[in-house]
Amino acid sequence: MATSKPKYSYEALTSPAEVEDHTPFAGLNAVVNTATATVKQQQQQPALKLLKSVPSATADLEIMNQIRIVTEKIKILKAVKADKALIDEQVALLKDLNTKKNDSSLADDDASKKFDLKTPKGTRDFVPEEMAIREQMFATISKVFKRHGGVTIDTPVFELKEILTGKYGEDSKLIYDLKDQGGELSSLRYDLTVPFARFLAMHGISNIKRYHIGKVYRRDNPSVNKGRMREFFQCDFDIAGEYGSMIPDSEILKVVVEVLEAVDIGNFKVKINHRKILDGIFEVCGVPAEKFRPISSAVDKLDKAPWTEVKKEMVEEKGLDEAVADRIEQYVKLCGSVEVCDILAADPKFTTSKRAMEGVNDMRLLFKYLDLLGVKEKMSFDLSLARGLDYYTGVIYEAVFESTSEETSGVGSIAAGGRYDDLVGMFSPSGKKIPCVGVSVGVERVFALLLAKQRAAKSNTKQRTTSTQVYLVGLGSGHLDQRMTTATRLWKAGVATEYAFKEKPRREAQFKVIAEEGIPVSVVFDDVKFGAGKIQVEYNIGEGKEKVVIGVEDVVETVKRFL
Amino acid sequence: MATSKPKYSYEALTSPAEVEDHTPFAGLNAVVNTATATVKQQQQQPALKLLKSVPSATADLEIMNQIRIVTEKIKILKAVKADKALIDEQVALLKDLNTKKNDSSLADDDASKKFDLKTPKGTRDFVPEEMAIREQMFATISKVFKRHGGVTIDTPVFELKEILTGKYGEDSKLIYDLKDQGGELSSLRYDLTVPFARFLAMHGISNIKRYHIGKVYRRDNPSVNKGRMREFFQCDFDIAGEYGSMIPDSEILKVVVEVLEAVDIGNFKVKINHRKILDGIFEVCGVPAEKFRPISSAVDKLDKAPWTEVKKEMVEEKGLDEAVADRIEQYVKLCGSVEVCDILAADPKFTTSKRAMEGVNDMRLLFKYLDLLGVKEKMSFDLSLARGLDYYTGVIYEAVFESTSEETSGVGSIAAGGRYDDLVGMFSPSGKKIPCVGVSVGVERVFALLLAKQRAAKSNTKQRTTSTQVYLVGLGSGHLDQRMTTATRLWKAGVATEYAFKEKPRREAQFKVIAEEGIPVSVVFDDVKFGAGKIQVEYNIGEGKEKVVIGVEDVVETVKRFL
Repeated sequence: MATSKPKYSYEALTSPAEVEDHTPFAGLNAVVNTATATVKQQQQQPALKLLKSVPSATADLEIMNQIRIVTEKIKILKAVKADKALIDEQVALLKDLNTKKNDSSLADDDASKKFDLKTPKGTRDFVPEEMAIREQMFATISKVFKRHGGVTIDTPVFELKEILTGKYGEDSKLIYDLKDQGGELSSLRYDLTVPFARFLAMHGISNIKRYHIGKVYRRDNPSVNKGRMREFFQCDFDIAGEYGSMIPDSEILKVVVEVLEAVDIGNFKVKINHRKILDGIFEVCGVPAEKFRPISSAVDKLDKAPWTEVKKEMVEEKGLDEAVADRIEQYVKLCGSVEVCDILAADPKFTTSKRAMEGVNDMRLLFKYLDLLGVKEKMSFDLSLARGLDYYTGVIYEAVFESTSEETSGVGSIAAGGRYDDLVGMFSPSGKKIPCVGVSVGVERVFALLLAKQRAAKSNTKQRTTSTQVYLVGLGSGHLDQRMTTATRLWKAGVATEYAFKEKPRREAQFKVIAEEGIPVSVVFDDVKFGAGKIQVEYNIGEGKEKVVIGVEDVVETVKRFL
Repeated sequence: MATSKPKYSYEALTSPAEVEDHTPFAGLNAVVNTATATVKQQQQQPALKLLKSVPSATADLEIMNQIRIVTEKIKILKAVKADKALIDEQVALLKDLNTKKNDSSLADDDASKKFDLKTPKGTRDFVPEEMAIREQMFATISKVFKRHGGVTIDTPVFELKEILTGKYGEDSKLIYDLKDQGGELSSLRYDLTVPFARFLAMHGISNIKRYHIGKVYRRDNPSVNKGRMREFFQCDFDIAGEYGSMIPDSEILKVVVEVLEAVDIGNFKVKINHRKILDGIFEVCGVPAEKFRPISSAVDKLDKAPWTEVKKEMVEEKGLDEAVADRIEQYVKLCGSVEVCDILAADPKFTTSKRAMEGVNDMRLLFKYLDLLGVKEKMSFDLSLARGLDYYTGVIYEAVFESTSEETSGVGSIAAGGRYDDLVGMFSPSGKKIPCVGVSVGVERVFALLLAKQRAAKSNTKQRTTSTQVYLVGLGSGHLDQRMTTATRLWKAGVATEYAFKEKPRREAQFKVIAEEGIPVSVVFDDVKFGAGKIQVEYNIGEGKEKVVIGVEDVVETVKRFL
């Protein structure tokens, strides 16, 4: 039996992501979606129902899904240090599900199933509770971008294959191709950066501050545990144009700090470095030119591995002279603020590299601007930051979440980017270069943190998913006509209003909706109790509960006073 | 030479769509994107530049693109009855381009081109001016959906191929498949309705009011002239659940009217009919059961073709007895309001069909509710409305734009939908039916109308693309440090602020940005003129121009007073 109005309930779950970076060319950090969700029907347990009534493969799948979900839920509960009773409850449920799985003697090759009722591997749905958080997050981030003069663009979800070809190095294998159904070969976009560069070249735009929030696709091996999805959102802000040195770069870093403060996920710091300095280090340490890239990629692992391991990779795997590696160590362990510039500038060997000193001068200027913009304290000049991507030409950065719990310590990078001055030129028919600097916010990780936080904080209050302000309750004869005309008045006045889609809805069903959706105002029609043409308007929230009986003609005025 | 800050200019063009419906199963009208756009660089003409410097195939493509765009522009100018001089100017340009095309002896098979600098066939970019209109449109529509208690969901852009298989009849050939790169076979979604039904079945949701704004994909033959694109937005609102007869249906129709009034595109009416009545007509006229579908599809053409032609199709192509066709004519020419119910109920032959009379009773009730909701006058009970889709089970409707000019008369359907009670059951493992009723707003057509309207109305004023409220102007020594610290203050106060990314930007370049972007407030730093620590704050818009010289420490307060 259905309830008296559109309604659903669900449990949405998520876990913080582990550090994963699959963005060799994008210049933007891989953002990964860690959330897994399931939705349950209001007054029944469809999974259990499924077990009795559906083809076995589907039922089996449902159990597997639930196991996955409960496993994730336990992780989160532990991560947020939830009440032990809550965790135990989930552990018991998991045990129960595992028993069911073993009991179920359903073969994988059961041919009776109609189809898998699921989304493709590595993709997922978002239920309304999640969408409410997600839209709020995007609105918060867009607001910061707009505050800095950003405009937005849109590009197709797929590009000509040749546009993407040769842009992502070995990760090109992760590109989703469309089937050749006659005509052009196309591929789903891998990031938003290459389409942006193509957009600039194609439309002949030489300067723009643009942001773009959109889905990207990577045919990676999805991992629910690692939060690696095949379809996920990226959220990029880039500045293109010929400008004064370090001025747009400093604004991008200001935007990063403002965005991460605005989404309110907790502490973070921004590691910064400069490609010219990194290359200068390799130069003065004696790394052969052809090994710059592999050695840079080894350095990039220093945030996850100790020096001894990285050195081993350099020497044993990549054939670097041990003495050279030792010299590199002296540099990449440097970390701090602008004083790192002084240390480098005082190093007679380092100063022999003109290129490296250009980087140092850039960093001095950048720190000056970051100080003026009030974000210098958030920065960590970290010579071990390398970023695995080839196309950076200047400043590079990566914002890192500073976890307060051991369990979320794996979240890692939550925004990343850098300067890429040569990419647009690859697309421009005239080869004209357009200098660019940008950042990609790891919105899936931010979302996972926000969802976990929301669920931990408000275990007893639900995230509102509707914006409904008024619910019209029909008692006695139901008063459907009056509910319709009254709703029409309220809608006309811009008030979000709902009513039960029944002629005579049940009293309890209506009040249940009000309570569950957290609708602030109810309007009750009951002419036996209030008299003909009279209604009771009631404010339902918190301490400010109040009710008045008025003539129905005054409904808009009264409701607006209550809201 | 670059200008002093991020800036671009462009010309975006669009034409109203012709009537095209490729949605045999979606229950939602095909929405087509008619806009074509090009973007030009600020201080040069890249297209002409391209002609000199780039591989010939690309140049050829550029000319062809421009010809296409100018052709569209002329159409629009004519459609909006623009000034003749404007039209003539474009016609001259078109002639010029055609000459260039003929002069250009560039072979199509020129092997020197690197790649086509374009988006895939049938897809397009959206430049910031278009995005500003588009986002406003989506916000307006979402607001109406939320006012009616709608929640939103998200589903992946691709689904398992088997989910889509068998849902779209002969148009299944238009589905984009992903390449088989190992693993599951997936396809880009063709509409939002099938994914919604899959979502409900998979998550066991039995009642929900949901809206979804998302891109869908159809590998149709794109036609810029007909505005048929391969990637376009759909914007759906659906109510799922077991409810009182016609109550959710009436709310959907109320939502349709509110949405189309809110987007403010001009007059429209909503044609409504009922599948049971249509089938009842066929039944009492003597159409053999196996011909219900083909005859229904012939009736559906009555909005574009005269009866004689439709009859010819029925009799000659579909082998219907001529007398039967003549009997059908007597019914399908009926059109009006609720009185059509009386006419049908007074017809002794018609009333023999129980099914048909159920439809009549539904329509009576629907009209009663539509009257209470204040939208009865917008409705036209039109027995010739058939909707080409199989899966409708009850009320069907189509909102039609009532053009005021001959040229936009082809826009046609701008929203469409109906009741589909059996679709979710096709996905549910238990076969459980979930009654649904919904509508799809033809947002691409609405967008095309809005863009044309905006361009016609404001030929001298540009659509703002940024939200920037304050521009900091540095004169004399440039005052970059002060501009940075002042911007930081303003950003902190939530004020959208920009400044030139140069140490000493040119005076004219800065004021040009303010004028072109329509930034309301400027703050001028010039210590020679105003004295150290003093700034001039100026309100730039309309009659209310005002300027004051203040101490820089009062900038936030003063700017907020001005805004």
